[in-house]
Amino acid sequence: MNAGLSDIDIGVRSIAERARAASRAVVAAPAGARSLALKGIARALRSRAGELIAANALDLERAAAAGLDQPMVDRLRIDQRAVDRMIEGVLQVDTLPDPVGEITELRTLPSGIQVGRMRVPLGVIGIIYESRPNVTVDAAVLCLKSGNACILRGGSESIESNRAIADAIAEGVDGTGIPSDAIQLIATTDRAAVGALLRQDGLVDVIIPRGGKGLIERIVRESTIPVIKHLDGVCHVFIDVSADAAMAVNIAINSKTEKYAVCNAMETLLVHRARAGELLPELARRFAAAGVELRGCESSRCIVPAMKIATEEDWSAEYLGPILAVRVVDDLGAAIGHINRYGSQHTDCIVTNDLAASRRFVTEVDSASVMVNASTQFADGFEYGLGAEIGISTNKLHARGPVGLEGLTTRKFVVYGQGEVRKR
Amino acid sequence: MNAGLSDIDIGVRSIAERARAASRAVVAAPAGARSLALKGIARALRSRAGELIAANALDLERAAAAGLDQPMVDRLRIDQRAVDRMIEGVLQVDTLPDPVGEITELRTLPSGIQVGRMRVPLGVIGIIYESRPNVTVDAAVLCLKSGNACILRGGSESIESNRAIADAIAEGVDGTGIPSDAIQLIATTDRAAVGALLRQDGLVDVIIPRGGKGLIERIVRESTIPVIKHLDGVCHVFIDVSADAAMAVNIAINSKTEKYAVCNAMETLLVHRARAGELLPELARRFAAAGVELRGCESSRCIVPAMKIATEEDWSAEYLGPILAVRVVDDLGAAIGHINRYGSQHTDCIVTNDLAASRRFVTEVDSASVMVNASTQFADGFEYGLGAEIGISTNKLHARGPVGLEGLTTRKFVVYGQGEVRKR
Repeated sequence: MNAGLSDIDIGVRSIAERARAASRAVVAAPAGARSLALKGIARALRSRAGELIAANALDLERAAAAGLDQPMVDRLRIDQRAVDRMIEGVLQVDTLPDPVGEITELRTLPSGIQVGRMRVPLGVIGIIYESRPNVTVDAAVLCLKSGNACILRGGSESIESNRAIADAIAEGVDGTGIPSDAIQLIATTDRAAVGALLRQDGLVDVIIPRGGKGLIERIVRESTIPVIKHLDGVCHVFIDVSADAAMAVNIAINSKTEKYAVCNAMETLLVHRARAGELLPELARRFAAAGVELRGCESSRCIVPAMKIATEEDWSAEYLGPILAVRVVDDLGAAIGHINRYGSQHTDCIVTNDLAASRRFVTEVDSASVMVNASTQFADGFEYGLGAEIGISTNKLHARGPVGLEGLTTRKFVVYGQGEVRKR
Repeated sequence: MNAGLSDIDIGVRSIAERARAASRAVVAAPAGARSLALKGIARALRSRAGELIAANALDLERAAAAGLDQPMVDRLRIDQRAVDRMIEGVLQVDTLPDPVGEITELRTLPSGIQVGRMRVPLGVIGIIYESRPNVTVDAAVLCLKSGNACILRGGSESIESNRAIADAIAEGVDGTGIPSDAIQLIATTDRAAVGALLRQDGLVDVIIPRGGKGLIERIVRESTIPVIKHLDGVCHVFIDVSADAAMAVNIAINSKTEKYAVCNAMETLLVHRARAGELLPELARRFAAAGVELRGCESSRCIVPAMKIATEEDWSAEYLGPILAVRVVDDLGAAIGHINRYGSQHTDCIVTNDLAASRRFVTEVDSASVMVNASTQFADGFEYGLGAEIGISTNKLHARGPVGLEGLTTRKFVVYGQGEVRKR
């Protein structure tokens, strides 16, 4: 029967089959069961904090022995404060409105049937992530809140922490009407398990990777299951001819420097030619003070000769660090053209006081988030009021931009009749 | 530069690049341009009806010479009535509400930014279809109405008709502000062109195949672009214990026999054990009169011994013809379990007068359309009031069920600020 399948394949398939069955059970569970389970998870995390921290110490030891650098080790660490934050996150998700079951657009059609759309869970979600063990809790509770079963596959550096968290989750869910198979951890560190998970189409409905570009590219390449992903965040700020000078400088500085290693950080600054002479020297001073290296086009360097020369590669670079590409553009159309050509359809902003320009920018820039007069660093599920975020998507189909609970659901048609039949 | 690329690859890439540029132009076009183009297409189809019918005659001749069977030839045929129907379809799409540009859920968040969601075109849509040349018009106008550019690839049997239709579309669009590259036909019959189109990710946003299962399976396998598809329509009707007898029989008969070769036809009938003795003989008589062969489970055959024996394969068979699988089930839970296990998540119906049963069925059956007391043959974009239909999707992500104009769009976030910056 299983010719050609490794033990890992068989194990992952069994996990996926149990997840599929559990996803049906979650949908069929009594109202309130998911909330009970979330509260149970919070309680179990609290009572098992000592075990979590002890398990995490093993990961930290191993990381130190393996010579992981300090930022990596810090991201791994779970102390009492980290456990408290996890618990707070779980309880906060519990308070969000239930995204499942809503029926909208219910209309009576000429045939007599009523047709509406019902929001339902996606089913089974595979989460593949690196490093931070808190993702184990965050992802599990978002999937559960939205009525999905999930299969979690964390990084090998945090395997002990992840196992301890998974044990706590299982304890918390027990007796609430939610089956423990609704949240499963792939507890082996064998990398083949990722490949096996990516082939469970028919049992797993969507894969959500969280991690570096290398991980995400591998997953997109190998997966036969749809992937909700974002690859690049090459975000732009365009300072239009009518921009308020102080606002433009503030937004540019914040979009770049509030945090560097985030996908919503600005990577290229575009400045309208009519404002470049006035604004670039001030911007250059501010960025220099913040320690940001500027790489400019020829026109920019005429105004600020200290800038390095930008090459063609700089226009599509995601630095994730204190480097910024700078380009002077002739007009709004050139700015939109640059963004649609070199950008990554993630988050782009115009600073302007011209209503027509703002409307054109919002209409024509083909990105998941298009902003007027606000820092690109706002592109985030919490800042957008989604209540939670499982990731940011640069896909066009399904979820686009920050993905909250709604992105973990889909809609089916519901039809109510009184015996109507179709006559063609 | 183009080492390893065939002429076909280069040609298709060039079409895709022009489509991408045209998709930007459609979004940037003045309000009303798309409507002008639709009216222009209707006008050109009317004035070129003679050329269309003449071109179609060449396809019909070739089909006859190649020995295509009569139903295939009939599906190919364009006469004056067919042209009139095409024109009517174009004008009807023109009257539908514009799905693009709507901004919803605009809220002011605690930071002061306003965040909303704007409905926008997907971008470039590749349509791959067989046989019926009217798809060339239908698909083109739905894509244009929703602000997309499209690349059309029809079957080789209808190449002359498709070229003539494409010429008429180009004439109709001319001078309206919509670039002619917004609707392009791949005019070669070389099959390699399909493969080349399926690799244009980055330029083509989604592929929609219309045709037989073989075509769709090939496309799903080869495409590196997301595919909106449906593979199977294994639809069920479940007659619950509380069903009205006459309604149950009517719905079962209509769901199967109104049309056989459609994806929303019933393929398996499930009957509650408590009603089987009463209803199966009557159903068997009615189906026999309609010429439908029944294949039953053991319990069914105890009641109607004339039924053939259903095998395990019958439960997942899509007959698309006058054959029906019949199974007696113990209760509602068993019916839901059967449907979720053997069905294709397309369209499934319960006939019941029990409110709790209908609610449970609607909640737990994991299909694109879930119906209560209505024929499965209603699963259709027009019957659902979508105004149009480009296909039916059994995907869970993005569009699910009948896909109308909304399924050809996506939503981006729009953010309006007054200079807000983020403080973490």
